[in-house]
Amino acid sequence: MGIRLGANQYGKAESRVVRIVRDTARHEIRDLNVSTSLRGDFEAAHVDGDQAAVLPTDSQKNTAFSYAKEHGVDSIEDYALALGQRLLEAAPTATGCLTRVEEYAWDRIPVDGTGHDHAFVRRGGEVRTAEVDRTGDGVEVVSGLTDLIVLKSTGSEFRGYLKDRYTTLPETDDRILATSLTATWRWTGTEVDWNGTYAQVRGTLLQTFATTYSRALQETLWLMGRAVLEQQPAIAEISFAAPNKHHLLVDLSPFGVANEGEVFVAADRPYGLIEATVTRDDE
Amino acid sequence: MGIRLGANQYGKAESRVVRIVRDTARHEIRDLNVSTSLRGDFEAAHVDGDQAAVLPTDSQKNTAFSYAKEHGVDSIEDYALALGQRLLEAAPTATGCLTRVEEYAWDRIPVDGTGHDHAFVRRGGEVRTAEVDRTGDGVEVVSGLTDLIVLKSTGSEFRGYLKDRYTTLPETDDRILATSLTATWRWTGTEVDWNGTYAQVRGTLLQTFATTYSRALQETLWLMGRAVLEQQPAIAEISFAAPNKHHLLVDLSPFGVANEGEVFVAADRPYGLIEATVTRDDE
Amino acid sequence: MGIRLGANQYGKAESRVVRIVRDTARHEIRDLNVSTSLRGDFEAAHVDGDQAAVLPTDSQKNTAFSYAKEHGVDSIEDYALALGQRLLEAAPTATGCLTRVEEYAWDRIPVDGTGHDHAFVRRGGEVRTAEVDRTGDGVEVVSGLTDLIVLKSTGSEFRGYLKDRYTTLPETDDRILATSLTATWRWTGTEVDWNGTYAQVRGTLLQTFATTYSRALQETLWLMGRAVLEQQPAIAEISFAAPNKHHLLVDLSPFGVANEGEVFVAADRPYGLIEATVTRDDE
Amino acid sequence: MGIRLGANQYGKAESRVVRIVRDTARHEIRDLNVSTSLRGDFEAAHVDGDQAAVLPTDSQKNTAFSYAKEHGVDSIEDYALALGQRLLEAAPTATGCLTRVEEYAWDRIPVDGTGHDHAFVRRGGEVRTAEVDRTGDGVEVVSGLTDLIVLKSTGSEFRGYLKDRYTTLPETDDRILATSLTATWRWTGTEVDWNGTYAQVRGTLLQTFATTYSRALQETLWLMGRAVLEQQPAIAEISFAAPNKHHLLVDLSPFGVANEGEVFVAADRPYGLIEATVTRDDE
Repeated sequence: MGIRLGANQYGKAESRVVRIVRDTARHEIRDLNVSTSLRGDFEAAHVDGDQAAVLPTDSQKNTAFSYAKEHGVDSIEDYALALGQRLLEAAPTATGCLTRVEEYAWDRIPVDGTGHDHAFVRRGGEVRTAEVDRTGDGVEVVSGLTDLIVLKSTGSEFRGYLKDRYTTLPETDDRILATSLTATWRWTGTEVDWNGTYAQVRGTLLQTFATTYSRALQETLWLMGRAVLEQQPAIAEISFAAPNKHHLLVDLSPFGVANEGEVFVAADRPYGLIEATVTRDDE
Repeated sequence: MGIRLGANQYGKAESRVVRIVRDTARHEIRDLNVSTSLRGDFEAAHVDGDQAAVLPTDSQKNTAFSYAKEHGVDSIEDYALALGQRLLEAAPTATGCLTRVEEYAWDRIPVDGTGHDHAFVRRGGEVRTAEVDRTGDGVEVVSGLTDLIVLKSTGSEFRGYLKDRYTTLPETDDRILATSLTATWRWTGTEVDWNGTYAQVRGTLLQTFATTYSRALQETLWLMGRAVLEQQPAIAEISFAAPNKHHLLVDLSPFGVANEGEVFVAADRPYGLIEATVTRDDE
Repeated sequence: MGIRLGANQYGKAESRVVRIVRDTARHEIRDLNVSTSLRGDFEAAHVDGDQAAVLPTDSQKNTAFSYAKEHGVDSIEDYALALGQRLLEAAPTATGCLTRVEEYAWDRIPVDGTGHDHAFVRRGGEVRTAEVDRTGDGVEVVSGLTDLIVLKSTGSEFRGYLKDRYTTLPETDDRILATSLTATWRWTGTEVDWNGTYAQVRGTLLQTFATTYSRALQETLWLMGRAVLEQQPAIAEISFAAPNKHHLLVDLSPFGVANEGEVFVAADRPYGLIEATVTRDDE
Repeated sequence: MGIRLGANQYGKAESRVVRIVRDTARHEIRDLNVSTSLRGDFEAAHVDGDQAAVLPTDSQKNTAFSYAKEHGVDSIEDYALALGQRLLEAAPTATGCLTRVEEYAWDRIPVDGTGHDHAFVRRGGEVRTAEVDRTGDGVEVVSGLTDLIVLKSTGSEFRGYLKDRYTTLPETDDRILATSLTATWRWTGTEVDWNGTYAQVRGTLLQTFATTYSRALQETLWLMGRAVLEQQPAIAEISFAAPNKHHLLVDLSPFGVANEGEVFVAADRPYGLIEATVTRDDE
């Protein structure tokens, strides 16, 4: 029984590409974090130390920066599609290229009621993401967002759950529900209005979170996912990773102070971690 | 020559106090990070191990949570003023109490064009801060913000500087200027509309950054500080700590691609660090 | 075409469990970060909001703490095996339980040449990890480490690689090679001396990194993985994620200073990211 | 009443300087994070936008890298003394230069019982620090360390403290005491064996922490500081910032499990923060 190389991939991670569009006096900014990774037949590089088939990660980085100009960044999906295609072509023994992009949003600084031409303030809040996985057979695009922090101060319960000998949690019919949402949605194709649908999906996620009663974070994720799929026929499935950021009611009774859902401690760790995918039923 | 105890203080840091105001169906949220610290005659606790004069940090934490209800959080300055006064009264050998509060902003989730009653999305962007230092002689209030990330894609130069044998930086008359601003402004008194002035100062900082030409980050800080002092007569001085977040133009010429201020790499480290105070001249 | 729930799991992440063994005056400390996750038939919790089958993440956390005493922590693998078994039994509709544990190492503080009985200093360096995935069909144990930061100041080259139009990297026959290693090794069974083999694998990884010439980080990972598999017959495969932490030679020639591999800037981002698995060939 | 520039300084922060000493086959590594800052008459740069007196932060960075070769890094104090002197000379209107250096420790990788010539593993644990403040009048050197994480599993109590209406903490005569120590010690001169005394002070801090009974973290800091001053006549004073990293006993009684100081939850926030200086009494 011998020893052999198994799955492997390599690339350049976290190139911080900033593109300014300055064709007119009204500049635009795209602020990206770009990672690319090639996979395929790179056994010689590992086993023989022969780099002849290896496109250096430095060249991958150079391509990422140059493509921000050559191809442009109309959307991060569009940019990642082009970048991945180029890298796959440039490395003959590669069979797949995974391109991941994060985008940080900026707003124009308001001056006298209108946004300034070339001065920006970083928006904060969620980070938009895209993952494009391209092979010789085709391409898969997954759009998403991360760190969308949402909270509802009522309209959430947690009760009727399974009890065992280690259960001490009291049931509650009114609690804070908060999470830092990561969501990724996989598209059935590439003929998509990436920027327009991003805004729509984000809006649907937020609105569903706000307007539905929650009997558990699991139910809320299901409702959010179903609403997105109902709205967006070109999305095949949506996945969530949602830390349940616990807000614990503080006992103020030793001080003679009532606390009916008014003062909480926001806990860092531990946190619940709820992961779920909502998908189309192909049957 | 003996050995003695010098300056000392102690307290509870980073209590994550969340206050929900739910007197009506339209909830409000104040999301705080609270640190308190007492100083004064605590020599016995150190030198003799005698804790009789020490108000435990745990009690300081309890007070922070209870005051979020008992006193409320109309503004973080107002809350910190009350909390510090209580702690100073509770610890007879203390001569001073420093209370620091950070506030994380939330927006109502928009539903059908209006903000939801009890569902929120964290705004991101800058963190609002307050420091209240109270002694038997009086109280000093310093308001502020941190992590206000701003960028201008033109309207910034850096040239005419001192050269020595280690200078290799080329002069430039058009660069990206970006910083993650920390600003703190000290008030002459406590009769202040804390929330209203916060919005005004933040607006003045942003607008001045946007609308003034920059010959160096130093000049921009000076202009921002001066504008705030001119607008707010009750502010005695304003201090800045501003990392110059370098955006370096990428050389795309090896690839035959022109890059006239369009593609940059956002560098993490090192960064310039510019610190300055703008103050009223009492002469 | 309908919409349905896909893959899902839930649990409690990052419980910071500290166990002191104090049966004698010579204490021992196990400092853990514990995450558990259940998967199986939890559709009712999502789709109907019915929590009857859901063992709360709070109960999972309680079990993690209690098992640190009831079962003890002879090794993190042994502890995770017991904890996962308990959770799977406690949740009848669960079909699988993933338990992940990180361990932070402490050394005894040296006093007069020997380690103190109950005073410790945190070692720093790498974090030991274990993942135990248990189903009704069996159990899979993956041991590992993360954040093992290693560097060689010579004995590393990178040349002979593929060039394309975006390649500007010069070839080098002497460079710094540095990485922050994450390694995970999967066992064929559970009859293992977990603590003894951990020390052996760590030692083999370090020694191989030190004593082999590197024609690329890929080759080095291969050599490290092969050495581990050759030494440990009960390991089925080992996987690596290794950021190539670039150390760039600084051009000091403008200052008339030679720099033949002596002064480098340690770059934060971007970094190469090399991932590879070395496995037994079952043919 | 006018508006004027107050205190200001500027410099380059966090240059990651790595120096390999390779005069023989047995290499040495110094891994540094260097920050420099100039202060003095820089009013024109702020108020008039005139940079003629400003030595760019980029030149400061270049000097930091070049001095790692030209001057070398026998110790971080020695290096910072030389670097600060150069920068002060290079900027005629500067009246002071603050140089701060962090050093990350590496061990040689053990191979067959001895340390390898050019392969290293990062030690982890505490970071060594130095601050050198140089003016025309003289120079002040402050050595230190940060992130020295220590814990004692017994030999610590906390009782007899002041109670008020917000006190709920029970007294304890046996608890875990843990902190992540930052200590800085100011020297009376510069004729110091920087590396030798660093090891001595670190050892004294650890040994005193281990061998003394603690009636509060305050008392422990006092004892540690006094021991250092008694041992090192050239140290004028030592200052501590010590977060009390709470380890809370977990109530396992609902599960019928006794827990007499055996299972704790390590809390992230809030934490006590104890700050104290121990100094020589000049009277």
